[in-house]
Amino acid sequence: MVRKITKRLPVPSFLKQRKTTKKPGQAPGTLHFTGEQRLDHVLMNLYDYDAEQLSEHDLSKIEDSKPYLDSPSKTWINVCGLHDIEKLKEIWQYFELHPLIQEDILNTNQRSKIEEYPDHMFFVLRMMSFSEDTGVLNVEQVSIVLSSNSVLSFQEDDFPIYEPVLHRLRSGAPRLRNHGPDYLAYALIDTIVDHYFKVLEKLGDEIEDLENEILQESDEDIPQKIHALRRKLIFFRRSVWPMRDSLNSLLREESPLIDEENKVFFRDVYDHLVQIIDGVENYRDMALGMLDMHMSQVSNKMNEVMKVLTIIATIFIPLTFIAGIYGMNFEYMPELSVPWAYPAVWGIMIVAAVVMLFYFRKKKWL
Amino acid sequence: MVRKITKRLPVPSFLKQRKTTKKPGQAPGTLHFTGEQRLDHVLMNLYDYDAEQLSEHDLSKIEDSKPYLDSPSKTWINVCGLHDIEKLKEIWQYFELHPLIQEDILNTNQRSKIEEYPDHMFFVLRMMSFSEDTGVLNVEQVSIVLSSNSVLSFQEDDFPIYEPVLHRLRSGAPRLRNHGPDYLAYALIDTIVDHYFKVLEKLGDEIEDLENEILQESDEDIPQKIHALRRKLIFFRRSVWPMRDSLNSLLREESPLIDEENKVFFRDVYDHLVQIIDGVENYRDMALGMLDMHMSQVSNKMNEVMKVLTIIATIFIPLTFIAGIYGMNFEYMPELSVPWAYPAVWGIMIVAAVVMLFYFRKKKWL
Amino acid sequence: MVRKITKRLPVPSFLKQRKTTKKPGQAPGTLHFTGEQRLDHVLMNLYDYDAEQLSEHDLSKIEDSKPYLDSPSKTWINVCGLHDIEKLKEIWQYFELHPLIQEDILNTNQRSKIEEYPDHMFFVLRMMSFSEDTGVLNVEQVSIVLSSNSVLSFQEDDFPIYEPVLHRLRSGAPRLRNHGPDYLAYALIDTIVDHYFKVLEKLGDEIEDLENEILQESDEDIPQKIHALRRKLIFFRRSVWPMRDSLNSLLREESPLIDEENKVFFRDVYDHLVQIIDGVENYRDMALGMLDMHMSQVSNKMNEVMKVLTIIATIFIPLTFIAGIYGMNFEYMPELSVPWAYPAVWGIMIVAAVVMLFYFRKKKWL
Amino acid sequence: MVRKITKRLPVPSFLKQRKTTKKPGQAPGTLHFTGEQRLDHVLMNLYDYDAEQLSEHDLSKIEDSKPYLDSPSKTWINVCGLHDIEKLKEIWQYFELHPLIQEDILNTNQRSKIEEYPDHMFFVLRMMSFSEDTGVLNVEQVSIVLSSNSVLSFQEDDFPIYEPVLHRLRSGAPRLRNHGPDYLAYALIDTIVDHYFKVLEKLGDEIEDLENEILQESDEDIPQKIHALRRKLIFFRRSVWPMRDSLNSLLREESPLIDEENKVFFRDVYDHLVQIIDGVENYRDMALGMLDMHMSQVSNKMNEVMKVLTIIATIFIPLTFIAGIYGMNFEYMPELSVPWAYPAVWGIMIVAAVVMLFYFRKKKWL
Amino acid sequence: MVRKITKRLPVPSFLKQRKTTKKPGQAPGTLHFTGEQRLDHVLMNLYDYDAEQLSEHDLSKIEDSKPYLDSPSKTWINVCGLHDIEKLKEIWQYFELHPLIQEDILNTNQRSKIEEYPDHMFFVLRMMSFSEDTGVLNVEQVSIVLSSNSVLSFQEDDFPIYEPVLHRLRSGAPRLRNHGPDYLAYALIDTIVDHYFKVLEKLGDEIEDLENEILQESDEDIPQKIHALRRKLIFFRRSVWPMRDSLNSLLREESPLIDEENKVFFRDVYDHLVQIIDGVENYRDMALGMLDMHMSQVSNKMNEVMKVLTIIATIFIPLTFIAGIYGMNFEYMPELSVPWAYPAVWGIMIVAAVVMLFYFRKKKWL
Repeated sequence: MVRKITKRLPVPSFLKQRKTTKKPGQAPGTLHFTGEQRLDHVLMNLYDYDAEQLSEHDLSKIEDSKPYLDSPSKTWINVCGLHDIEKLKEIWQYFELHPLIQEDILNTNQRSKIEEYPDHMFFVLRMMSFSEDTGVLNVEQVSIVLSSNSVLSFQEDDFPIYEPVLHRLRSGAPRLRNHGPDYLAYALIDTIVDHYFKVLEKLGDEIEDLENEILQESDEDIPQKIHALRRKLIFFRRSVWPMRDSLNSLLREESPLIDEENKVFFRDVYDHLVQIIDGVENYRDMALGMLDMHMSQVSNKMNEVMKVLTIIATIFIPLTFIAGIYGMNFEYMPELSVPWAYPAVWGIMIVAAVVMLFYFRKKKWL
Repeated sequence: MVRKITKRLPVPSFLKQRKTTKKPGQAPGTLHFTGEQRLDHVLMNLYDYDAEQLSEHDLSKIEDSKPYLDSPSKTWINVCGLHDIEKLKEIWQYFELHPLIQEDILNTNQRSKIEEYPDHMFFVLRMMSFSEDTGVLNVEQVSIVLSSNSVLSFQEDDFPIYEPVLHRLRSGAPRLRNHGPDYLAYALIDTIVDHYFKVLEKLGDEIEDLENEILQESDEDIPQKIHALRRKLIFFRRSVWPMRDSLNSLLREESPLIDEENKVFFRDVYDHLVQIIDGVENYRDMALGMLDMHMSQVSNKMNEVMKVLTIIATIFIPLTFIAGIYGMNFEYMPELSVPWAYPAVWGIMIVAAVVMLFYFRKKKWL
Repeated sequence: MVRKITKRLPVPSFLKQRKTTKKPGQAPGTLHFTGEQRLDHVLMNLYDYDAEQLSEHDLSKIEDSKPYLDSPSKTWINVCGLHDIEKLKEIWQYFELHPLIQEDILNTNQRSKIEEYPDHMFFVLRMMSFSEDTGVLNVEQVSIVLSSNSVLSFQEDDFPIYEPVLHRLRSGAPRLRNHGPDYLAYALIDTIVDHYFKVLEKLGDEIEDLENEILQESDEDIPQKIHALRRKLIFFRRSVWPMRDSLNSLLREESPLIDEENKVFFRDVYDHLVQIIDGVENYRDMALGMLDMHMSQVSNKMNEVMKVLTIIATIFIPLTFIAGIYGMNFEYMPELSVPWAYPAVWGIMIVAAVVMLFYFRKKKWL
Repeated sequence: MVRKITKRLPVPSFLKQRKTTKKPGQAPGTLHFTGEQRLDHVLMNLYDYDAEQLSEHDLSKIEDSKPYLDSPSKTWINVCGLHDIEKLKEIWQYFELHPLIQEDILNTNQRSKIEEYPDHMFFVLRMMSFSEDTGVLNVEQVSIVLSSNSVLSFQEDDFPIYEPVLHRLRSGAPRLRNHGPDYLAYALIDTIVDHYFKVLEKLGDEIEDLENEILQESDEDIPQKIHALRRKLIFFRRSVWPMRDSLNSLLREESPLIDEENKVFFRDVYDHLVQIIDGVENYRDMALGMLDMHMSQVSNKMNEVMKVLTIIATIFIPLTFIAGIYGMNFEYMPELSVPWAYPAVWGIMIVAAVVMLFYFRKKKWL
Repeated sequence: MVRKITKRLPVPSFLKQRKTTKKPGQAPGTLHFTGEQRLDHVLMNLYDYDAEQLSEHDLSKIEDSKPYLDSPSKTWINVCGLHDIEKLKEIWQYFELHPLIQEDILNTNQRSKIEEYPDHMFFVLRMMSFSEDTGVLNVEQVSIVLSSNSVLSFQEDDFPIYEPVLHRLRSGAPRLRNHGPDYLAYALIDTIVDHYFKVLEKLGDEIEDLENEILQESDEDIPQKIHALRRKLIFFRRSVWPMRDSLNSLLREESPLIDEENKVFFRDVYDHLVQIIDGVENYRDMALGMLDMHMSQVSNKMNEVMKVLTIIATIFIPLTFIAGIYGMNFEYMPELSVPWAYPAVWGIMIVAAVVMLFYFRKKKWL
């Protein structure tokens, strides 16, 4: 998003919804991957853990996960890469995911949401992370399927989003190890939401820069920059907002998949989202305010330009007229031969100019 | 809509509500077709199907549908053309439709809605499709009447909206064939909603084009174009928005005609509508933002024009005044006969001009 | 409303609320007629009907209605003229109307509403109809009191609002004749709402005219016209909006006076009101859009004017300065006696002008 | 409010909230009177009434009310003046008012509200009345405490707000005399709300005046006047709005102090408030519309001014240049000695001027 | 906030959310203090009280509080300074606070909220107080943990926020001493909310000053000042608003920690918050109104400037042209030798000027 907008303000990819998506009228669950291939092949990592142990495995076939899934320990399978539909289909059929879940995982322009199905809870989120060196915003869609004893997560890329969670798993963090897969799902979502704060911070920096530019009255494309900023805020808000509503209904409803005791953590994520949306709303208000400020600065400047022009023209145009009068070549102009006429004309001119200046001072134009 | 707006911005037909409609005070169910005749005669296609078989028939009389309706298999009758009220009346009376349903089918300026009647569920939608070659938007009103074992659908034209659904029926898609008529109704509605994404995409392209035009500071009728775009967005939003509300209450309420298990599909349609409305809201925000950007560009440009004028006038008007002074014909002007007066005047003028230029540079006008 | 606004934009009568109304602190039910007398004397028409028969009577005393009211047939009494409070009081006391109903019938600046009282349901609406020839909008307040076997309707004027309903009664329309007085109340309200569509259409025509005027860039008082239009839309919206809310709660609640089966008809009226409000909202959005468009047209035009001025002034002011230089009368100006000086000055001037013109072309001012 | 705003637009007293109020952290019920003393000493009037009789008394000590309060008849005590906290404290302790009620009565910047306490219902309202001759708006805070058999009302001044209610009491109005103290409370509140209509009317007149001023394109401080008007509307709206919400919850909830049968009267007050808020919203919309209209009038006028300047300058600047050319004093200017040169120059000038005029006409600047 | 904004409008610290906060993906309860260290070491004050006695102690170890906590008397521990996490951890573990409470106490960019945990009720607020002499706004985050028989409060600084409550405790205020710790929590929160009124008042003063500046048409950076004001209002509103929602749900729900009888006091705090938010909304409306007023003043002034320029230029440019004509040096200009030509030219000029002046008067430019 960021890298493109700075060039020529194209419609951000989020807004170009479902460009290459299924044709109207196809059956639900007709599978088309709407993103671009980012990996060579699909990667599957399985993590099997309980309070005592953690084992990690690279899966080549989904069937290999059977012993772990059948065991009482909790299982997390993270799948990277969404381009190989055949492979994914095997996974989904193995887990008996609803066709609409399948469609939503592949459609990478999905609105963030949480949906309950008989045996699964399905989360779709938009991961946004800043590459610290390049300043490029990396956006990818992330899906999480929560079952009674496993978590299945999908991402487009192999970007190590969940590294911190993995680190806590490995270091034996007791809460993560002891609680059920719902707590793991929470941990994954919380990691993603934490990244939003970084994006918000970045946007805050941009606003501050822009505000200073406006205060220093540089003219360089302020309207375009404000417009670009507003678009980014729209995009960011629309990515975060739907998650808030979904989490809210998750908190209000009972679900066998989410332990009542763990809801307090989901409530914490909800609070974070509210805080982020608050921040975005602030920034939108401020962007509008900056535009107002810029517009009235432009008006003020134009006013100042006009005053200079008016003062100069109003003083000199009448004087030039007087000079023009005595530049006429009539034979009979008695004033011309009066010796004190020339200084008298000068006197008149000076008086006129001084009167004008007083008038302008009274009008506060000077 | 599109084809007209580009010419002279007339009120889109949706807004010209019920122009040729019934007189105030007529009984409900008084039948008047408010659209224009698009077909020679009414076409009726019957599709009778169950898990095993599909049979297709062109009906000339509605009574011919009796054996299919009486059989346990599911029946779909698609009616094209709404101008022949007598013919339609026969159909409606045969199906015992409520007079208000009859009135709504004919009134092609209907607001999208879903209404429950004792034996029927009634859907009205606005179909919008783009003709790929001409870029013309084709708008027609579509009605669907869902009964316990049949679906009755009405359209103004014979545009093959439902072709993809038909294709799936013929190719024996198991979910479509096995589920009841409520699933068929879902499939029809989903097809129509899928078309909205295409329209949204088209509007997104228009916005992108317009944004680039504004960035390149072309003046060609930007305000008019933004106004036309905003009108299209208003029209589109008003077509989609009411559907969302209706679907929402459909999802919340229980109805004998809609299988609980199939509600997940209607929820998916609802999600799509929310996504579309989100997109339209984005575009409306962006259209406003573009107007702001354009307006401040115009201000900036005027500012620049004024600066040029002011610089030129402020430098040369005083100089011209000085030249005017020494163009006067007074007999006693001692300076005139001083040999170095002419170069001295030049010197004064140059100094004055340079001072001015420094002043303008300090003011950042240069 | 219309006829006045076009002259000098006075506050529409709706906004001049209760100008001549009761003094603060008077008892509820203190009766003051707030409109102007439009008829010589109060007219009372009684219609007594059931499925078999219809009898019509002009009443001179309200007591004459007794036999009809006591009979099992349904009775509709339409009262025209609200200026004769004594006469009206007799009617109200005869029907035992609540004092607040009495006050509301007389106060012709009432907000539209539906109120339930123990034995009555009370409807207040604003009738708006266009006189086709004069284009004048006729506004009057209409009240309907529904009892278990009768309908009592009040209007300020003897304008034949209910003619179409009467026509259906007389021609024996079965639904109207068979259903109870709630259906009659529906029919009366529906007639009034149908008139709103006509008003909406008229406003749509005005918008279209105004839009074309703006597109043809005529300056004739566009801001005033848009302002007048917005006021009309505000007025219209405020007249229709409260009715929607009242109907909505009528639909949600149970009342012994409204048959469940007839609610579908009230729902239809509700849908019509929603559609009308939708249309008004559209028009308000469009009016705002037209103002934006007009404002940026004005800016664009001013920009163009400024460019012409700047081009002319910027080319000729320096040239005039040069001419002024050689119009000075210094004795020692060596250039004056050089033979090729005059054509050389012309050359300089032409070059200067051409350079300017190139500069303006580069700036896209030409 | 009114009298001040017209001078220098200070913050209305409502907005200067609690300027001289208690220090942060003091106990609730710490008593400070936040208004200004308006009376010499506190006045207490007691009215004891039932269906048969009414007796009026000036109380000097609150204990004197005991026989009336103990009797089955209803008792209304109106207290004028809030500056003597000791005296008021006696009253409150006698009636055992909750400390928060005591604090709210004294804090004259209270938001309007209705609050239920175990034995009391507490109403705070803002009384606004126009002095007909001076046009000054008189604002004071009014509190009403409803108990099971008495009403206690407090006002800052001895302005006879409740005169009309008293008049009805004295003249034996049956409803007022027969119903309980809840009806009396209604009557008092209704009187206050009736005054709001007068204020609304006055604001409507101001809007109309302002609109006419704008239409006649007088420039006298229109923006300031619109701003002052908007501030008054904000103030008025904020005074009325909270009352609406409070009444709404009063209507929805059951209270032993309010008779179900009398709720219809409170509903009527509620309706009046909704109508007033409607009106204020209208006026706010209209004030915004007037600002838009004024702004575009200013733009239009500036455009017109610019056109005049441009036409004059564009015609005469080139002509003056030509005259300047032949005013040069070169020795070798062959044209000067050509006899027809002078008329030829005139011809050129006239042609140039005519061409310009045609150009301006084509551009519709003339 | 205030001290910074007046310099260069940086993003207020609230908006720079969680700049130095935990890395994405860390476990909840991972403790990082996000503020700056304001004290040398953590201070702990214990107040143990019941109706009869109050004892005060400086704690060095949290374990020292055991006897007081075990006694039936109520205990309040106020902790100042949040930088020493180890120390704080001891406290929290002693009280068995939930990890999310711990995280929220340390994160000083918290949104105000009230959260229920099994054994605690947790309040986070933003304390804002004005230093009377410097005019600097002091912002710190304050947390309150309410248990069944104790209150634990945390603040960043040792600013004596709760001095007034302490004073009341010491002076034996009966309500405070007799009620449970919920009443103490109320008293603490009420103190903080009372400070908001002071801030609101200060903002009101600023608005009044700014309004007067605008009315006196000083140009000094009005847009920047309005922008800074709007930012402060945004910040203030966002600090207060979430508290309102939290209190509202606190009032609606039952909690074992809050006595039903004391809810009336929390309702009072809620009312105060609503009043403050009302005030802020007013101020936001007024800030927008001031911007509108300023913008149209600028337009009006520019209009006036343009008129002066146009009048002068339009009168003198044609006259200068005439003078230029007779300054030409053609040999054959018959007028030049006519004796009355010079006064005739004067006459023509005067007539032209007078005609112009009449024209301008007619146009109301003079």
